[in-house]
Amino acid sequence: MSTARFSLNAATTKHWPVDELLAGAAAAGIGGVGLWREETQAHGVEKVAALARDLGLPITTLCRGGFFQEPGWFDENRRAIDEAHTLGAPILVLVSGGLPDGSRDVDAARRHVGDAIGELVPHARAAGVQLAIEPLHPMFASDRCVVSTLGQALDLARPYPAESVGVCVDTYHVWWDPEVWEQIARAGAEGRISAFQAADWITPLPEGVLLGRGLPGQGVIELRRFREAVDAAGYTGPVEVEVFHADVWARPGAEVLAETLNRYLAHVA
Amino acid sequence: MSTARFSLNAATTKHWPVDELLAGAAAAGIGGVGLWREETQAHGVEKVAALARDLGLPITTLCRGGFFQEPGWFDENRRAIDEAHTLGAPILVLVSGGLPDGSRDVDAARRHVGDAIGELVPHARAAGVQLAIEPLHPMFASDRCVVSTLGQALDLARPYPAESVGVCVDTYHVWWDPEVWEQIARAGAEGRISAFQAADWITPLPEGVLLGRGLPGQGVIELRRFREAVDAAGYTGPVEVEVFHADVWARPGAEVLAETLNRYLAHVA
Repeated sequence: MSTARFSLNAATTKHWPVDELLAGAAAAGIGGVGLWREETQAHGVEKVAALARDLGLPITTLCRGGFFQEPGWFDENRRAIDEAHTLGAPILVLVSGGLPDGSRDVDAARRHVGDAIGELVPHARAAGVQLAIEPLHPMFASDRCVVSTLGQALDLARPYPAESVGVCVDTYHVWWDPEVWEQIARAGAEGRISAFQAADWITPLPEGVLLGRGLPGQGVIELRRFREAVDAAGYTGPVEVEVFHADVWARPGAEVLAETLNRYLAHVA
Repeated sequence: MSTARFSLNAATTKHWPVDELLAGAAAAGIGGVGLWREETQAHGVEKVAALARDLGLPITTLCRGGFFQEPGWFDENRRAIDEAHTLGAPILVLVSGGLPDGSRDVDAARRHVGDAIGELVPHARAAGVQLAIEPLHPMFASDRCVVSTLGQALDLARPYPAESVGVCVDTYHVWWDPEVWEQIARAGAEGRISAFQAADWITPLPEGVLLGRGLPGQGVIELRRFREAVDAAGYTGPVEVEVFHADVWARPGAEVLAETLNRYLAHVA
C-alpha cells in the first residue's frame, strides 16, 4: 500500500506552522496537503505556493469558501478562488454557511446557496478551480452549513457544469445517511466527486461539537467501505484525512502526521 | 387557541415527581402528559395509571421502548408494551438504539431494528398499543438511534400494519432534513403519524448533545409549519412538547409547564 494517495488536511495539525507542515509532508513522501485559508494567508499565499512548488508537493484542496449567509460572501469567495488558483489547488471546498442571523427559513438559505454558487461559477471556471460543495453533518445545519446530505449537494450542483461544481465527500459528515451509498454512486455517475475526506465518528461529542472527530480507526465509520465506494464510483483523487480534535491539536505535527498516515494505511487504503 | 391539544412530555420537567406532574397538568387543563418508564416505574405503574384515570388526564405516549442493540431487548420491550397498556397510553415511542458495542455495521443494526419491531408487533397488537418508530437526529446515530430520518422510519414500518407500527415526528430530530415535508405527507398518506413532538433547535450544543434542546420559540425551527404539515397530512392527535435541557430541569415543574404552554400557544398552535 502506498502513501502517494494520502493527503494531510492541515486542520488535523492545526498548530503546525504551514512551512513546517509542507516540509514535513514532503519528507514523509505523502501525496499532498489540504490547506486552510486563514493559516495560509498568515504565512503569505504566494510564499506558501512557492514553497509547495519547490517541494513538489501538491496542494489537494483549499478550505474553505462558502458561508454564503454572511454579508460580503461574493467578494470573499472570489478571493478564496483566487487564492486556490495561486496555490495551484484544483479544488475550493465550500462550507455553505448556516441560517442568517434571526432567520428560521432554511429553505430560503438553501436556495441562496444554489444561487450564490451560480454567481461564482464564471470566476471559478476562469481560475481553473473547481468548487466542491461539502454537505456537513446535520448537527451543523443551523450554524455552519445548511447543506446536510450528499443528495442535496448534488441537487445544488446539478445546474452547473461538473468541471466547475462538484461535491466533497467527507465520511464524518455523511456516514449516518441511509442513502449515502446510492448518492456516492450517483455523484460518480455525474462526474462530481471532487474530493474525498476521511475522519472517524466518536462519542461523546464535545461542547460545540466542532472538535470531536476521531482519527481513522478510532470510531465507528466503515472508512474502507467509503474509500472503496468512491473508487467504485470512478474517483481516483487523493484521500485527505481531516480531523478536528483538541487532543490531536495539542500534539506535535510530525507525530500526528506519522500516526495519521499509519491509520490511513490500516483503515482506509 | 385551546390548551386541549397540548401535552407535556415529562422529560421537559424531569425532576417534577410524577404525581405532582399529573396534578399540575390536570389543574392547567392541558390535554395530557407523555411519561417515561423509569420515573413511572419508580412511582408505581398501577398507581400512576389510577391517578391519571381519577384526574381524567390522558397519557399520550410512553417513552421509551427500543434500544434493540441491548441483550434482553425483547423482554424489555414486552414489559414496556405492558406498561403502556396499563397506563392507557395508546403509543409506545421507540428509540431504536445505536450500534452494538464494537460494531461498525450500521446497516446490520438497521436491519435488526426492523426485525425486532416485527417480533414485537403481535404483543403490541394484543395489548392495543401502537409502536411509534422515532427517527433521532443523526448526531445520535452511533449511540442512541440508528434510525435517522423519517423516510427511513417509514421504510422500517412498512411491512407492518399501520395500527401497530407508526412513526413519531419530533421537530428537533427532523427539522434539518431536506426531504422532511414530503416524508410527513407520505407518513400521513400511509396512516402512520402516531405522535407529534415539538422542541426547538438551539446552539451551541452542550457536551454529549443530549441536553441541548430549546423550548418552543427559543431556536430556529419553523415549529408552526411542522404542526400545520402534520395536520395537513391528517394528524389530529396531541402535540407533545419534549425538551431536554439542564437549565429547564433546574426550574420548578409548574413554572416550566406554564411557560411551555404559553410558548406552545405562541409558536406551535
